[in-house]
Amino acid sequence: MTQSEKPVLALAMGDPAGVGPELTAKALADPEIRAAADFVVFGDRRVLEMGARHAHVDPIIEMVTEDKLADGAVDSSGTVFVDLAHFDPAGLELGVVSEAGGASAIANFKKAIAIAASGQAGAVTFTPFNKAAMRLAHPAYEDEVVFLNEVLGFDGKASEFNILPGLWNARVTSHVPISGVAELITRAAVFESLKLTHDNLRAAGFESPRIAVAALNPHAGDGGNFGSEDSHEIAPAVADGKAAGLACDGPFPSDTVFVRAQRGDFDAVLTMYHDQGQIAMKLIGFDAGVTLLGGYPFPICTPAHGTAYDIAGEGIADLGATKNALLLAAKMAPPPETATKRTAA
Amino acid sequence: MTQSEKPVLALAMGDPAGVGPELTAKALADPEIRAAADFVVFGDRRVLEMGARHAHVDPIIEMVTEDKLADGAVDSSGTVFVDLAHFDPAGLELGVVSEAGGASAIANFKKAIAIAASGQAGAVTFTPFNKAAMRLAHPAYEDEVVFLNEVLGFDGKASEFNILPGLWNARVTSHVPISGVAELITRAAVFESLKLTHDNLRAAGFESPRIAVAALNPHAGDGGNFGSEDSHEIAPAVADGKAAGLACDGPFPSDTVFVRAQRGDFDAVLTMYHDQGQIAMKLIGFDAGVTLLGGYPFPICTPAHGTAYDIAGEGIADLGATKNALLLAAKMAPPPETATKRTAA
Repeated sequence: MTQSEKPVLALAMGDPAGVGPELTAKALADPEIRAAADFVVFGDRRVLEMGARHAHVDPIIEMVTEDKLADGAVDSSGTVFVDLAHFDPAGLELGVVSEAGGASAIANFKKAIAIAASGQAGAVTFTPFNKAAMRLAHPAYEDEVVFLNEVLGFDGKASEFNILPGLWNARVTSHVPISGVAELITRAAVFESLKLTHDNLRAAGFESPRIAVAALNPHAGDGGNFGSEDSHEIAPAVADGKAAGLACDGPFPSDTVFVRAQRGDFDAVLTMYHDQGQIAMKLIGFDAGVTLLGGYPFPICTPAHGTAYDIAGEGIADLGATKNALLLAAKMAPPPETATKRTAA
Repeated sequence: MTQSEKPVLALAMGDPAGVGPELTAKALADPEIRAAADFVVFGDRRVLEMGARHAHVDPIIEMVTEDKLADGAVDSSGTVFVDLAHFDPAGLELGVVSEAGGASAIANFKKAIAIAASGQAGAVTFTPFNKAAMRLAHPAYEDEVVFLNEVLGFDGKASEFNILPGLWNARVTSHVPISGVAELITRAAVFESLKLTHDNLRAAGFESPRIAVAALNPHAGDGGNFGSEDSHEIAPAVADGKAAGLACDGPFPSDTVFVRAQRGDFDAVLTMYHDQGQIAMKLIGFDAGVTLLGGYPFPICTPAHGTAYDIAGEGIADLGATKNALLLAAKMAPPPETATKRTAA
């Protein structure tokens, strides 16, 4: 059998009590997704089977054990499910946070990260985690960025991107109280985020991505009347970006920049703090959103929505965001010829 | 002639170089607006006539001079235009900021405020101002709230409300740099804004307005991980509101509260800072928005959009927001029997 031309994506099953099992089953049964990439899926076989029952789909996938994968005995050209046999859904209560559920999601995520770090997969993807469950299982779990930095021993610049069809959002600061935001908005920090945004959009296929930079203060500081960061830090960072050849502009008042972006003036908006972008992105299209963690040696993609405990097990979860996440990962993953072959590991 | 049952609204013509003249003419020619209220319009007759030509409308209105109005010689039951004869549009360049344009808008606004303060009008309305022109004419002009406080010698609690069909937004802080927001978010300040929001919604006809209170920090502070204001200041203020009989709830993460409000869960969202609400409101429906300045002895309403210099004179400006502003003012203005009669002044 010849080496597949498709990228290889690691897919970690998320929280078992939410819509993740159903979404994993639906994704693996989706012809467009299967055509775009080969997957190494990490989870418990019984949880996938439960999801398949809920979704009324029958994903065709080769089951392997972890040692088989490590042996290189797995055909590198196909999609495989690595059965970690660590979570029995027999006693599972759907829609309820549990430490065991969080522990299984963390185990799946760690395996997916490891196979990507080793070069055997070009990107990591996962179905929704439940943060409360993650923290029960791993109290130091703050968010995916902090966890990844810990697991990978990574201290470079990484960031979360929120992506809707035709519109990306990146941010300079994230899980920071509003009282602490302004002091973090420096010329260097904004430029670094701008560059990271540009690089990730390029990796996703934008040749010369048009990036709008949001102002920090109301009316972009109104000429200094409502804060100095817009003129003293952000404007110089935008100038630095232009000097570096980036198609960026701003700072623009944040209450109109998304109106312009939505009508197609920009490919991405770089915001200064968490809610500045999230308010807009969730209003524009919560359901189809994708979260990309960019800046690591490999892209990491997941649907932006959560575990949707209220509809877990009903088979009605929309595959849209998960599909967008997997297709984006397939686009951003390095082509197989540059990735280490799984069989050579 | 019998005393009109309609409320009387003062209407100040805004910047003459924008869409204001056209909107004033269209509004005065609109049967629904004329049926809802009588108006005392302040401006220059020639500017109104210019607007009528641009809009291809013929508003029927009695022209009076200011001294006639003061004499009580004007019939209290009809709509009148008080010709201040202070701005000749002959040399006017449409779409260009000018000190003379700003000065005329300020003069109109002051007259409108005075007639409402005297009780001869139940509310003040105005077509868009251009802030740059206002500042050329009156350097201390920061925004309408600051100007009103100055003109009225008012030191109570007043606030700007942004209103879309079915959704109000009020805010605890407004033209404040992000670095200064958190320290202003106190239990007392949030409760005071909550009460003011409730009172204004009641005045507009909501019997028991459902008010959602937005959190300050990302994920509503995530249990204290990203800031303490949500649990220490905002949550107690919401409890105070409930204790006072208000139908309020929160604090809710600000990136999902507008999604809920948009689907009808709330009548209003109280936000903590300027862009938190403005980002959402402008995305939801920029064109139809109304700004209400509430908390003064009389309501003040204006379309939320600006002077739209780019389309000034073309006759294509949409009356929607202006109409909504005037109809809201008519609804909120005290009925004529409680307002002082103009003829008695």
